Amino acid sequence: MRLTSERRLDDGVLEHTFTLGDVPGILWTPGSVSGPVPLILLGHPGGLHRMHPRLVARARHSAADGFAAATIELPGSGDRPRSPALEEARADLRRALEAGEPVGDDIVDRLVLPLVGQAVPEWRTALDALLALPGIGGPVGYSGGVISVGTRLAAVEPRITAAVLFAGSFVPRAIFEEARRVTVPLHVLLQWDDEGNDRQAALDLFDAFGSKEKTLHANMGGHTGVPQFAGDAAAQFFARHLR
Amino acid sequence: MRLTSERRLDDGVLEHTFTLGDVPGILWTPGSVSGPVPLILLGHPGGLHRMHPRLVARARHSAADGFAAATIELPGSGDRPRSPALEEARADLRRALEAGEPVGDDIVDRLVLPLVGQAVPEWRTALDALLALPGIGGPVGYSGGVISVGTRLAAVEPRITAAVLFAGSFVPRAIFEEARRVTVPLHVLLQWDDEGNDRQAALDLFDAFGSKEKTLHANMGGHTGVPQFAGDAAAQFFARHLR
Repeated sequence: MRLTSERRLDDGVLEHTFTLGDVPGILWTPGSVSGPVPLILLGHPGGLHRMHPRLVARARHSAADGFAAATIELPGSGDRPRSPALEEARADLRRALEAGEPVGDDIVDRLVLPLVGQAVPEWRTALDALLALPGIGGPVGYSGGVISVGTRLAAVEPRITAAVLFAGSFVPRAIFEEARRVTVPLHVLLQWDDEGNDRQAALDLFDAFGSKEKTLHANMGGHTGVPQFAGDAAAQFFARHLR
Repeated sequence: MRLTSERRLDDGVLEHTFTLGDVPGILWTPGSVSGPVPLILLGHPGGLHRMHPRLVARARHSAADGFAAATIELPGSGDRPRSPALEEARADLRRALEAGEPVGDDIVDRLVLPLVGQAVPEWRTALDALLALPGIGGPVGYSGGVISVGTRLAAVEPRITAAVLFAGSFVPRAIFEEARRVTVPLHVLLQWDDEGNDRQAALDLFDAFGSKEKTLHANMGGHTGVPQFAGDAAAQFFARHLR
């Protein structure tokens, strides 16, 4: 891990950019801390520059609760090289949506499974590096989309102790099987009228998770309309499980 | 309204019993207040004596937030005269459940519609009397089951400004139509594995509510297993809407 920049935000939070091999990432740490702090991995749909304002807002919220937060760029997004196969799957998805056709399992698999297959090991490598930093101690939470990435990460990575998952993307059938192996406390956010999301699939996925403590918070509005109080509830979930 | 007893609980909350005609009820007011306080109507499945410990716990929570709380006995429950038609519908329901048969619309209608038809006017009369007391000012929330009672009350009673509804009982088709006319902020609790509840019907009812702000909180466990943090979240909902 190579730290590439550091700046202090107005509320004292330190924002560090880094690279891990050719994967760019960002780490936010609370302004004043004593001793190692828990860490929240911030998932997102790809495109760190585009997502930066929303990621910073989430990281500030985490820092206010005494947690560090970190994220890395997804494969094929932002400044990372495009994957021709992924671009083709995206184009097929767009065509299906524009034509009002159902999105077939084949498109979903081609869109999501390679992404999950590459992203999850990258997140785990990032976790190794982040937990080796002074001041970052764990426990570790995962927060956000892509829900298939979060699901596999929660299923295979024992250092994840709690996860907030955003139901807002297509989910391959294979991921439903992996969901049954997730046992950590889960807090799932669903936007009831999410235009790009299949509500029934999200409910089925929630049902599939093996976790004994799992909560679904469904709110009105579209994909980016998560209300402030829903964000606060997710923060309270982490406060319960990471402290 | 005739106040029939008053006692002070150990945390200072005042518990008053009362009767309204032949309907018994309970009012809890915060120990120390300045000026009129908001009021939460506590819905329940019937049987004030049996439900008393859980009602007191909810009322204490409300009082700690600065709210009064009140409840009345449901028709045909507790010390109130039994209704032969309701008892027959209950027996038919039990038979269907024990035989593992689907519960038909006819049974649900006979079980719930007369109850709603009698209980809602009683709740409104109680509201008249409670809001006339010194120290109770509104706004007013409704919290609890029977969800069909809460739905109609929220649809027809303009003094209800927010409602927490427990999805845990059978819902007649007619109530789905009334749900569309509900416009106040809603917070719906669903126990995902509720043995006596049809999950899909609960999700359909949530979808049917006309409210622009509505939130579904689904948690693991059976009918009486609502986790502490879900109760806290419902209290926060009222704190947002009744203060």
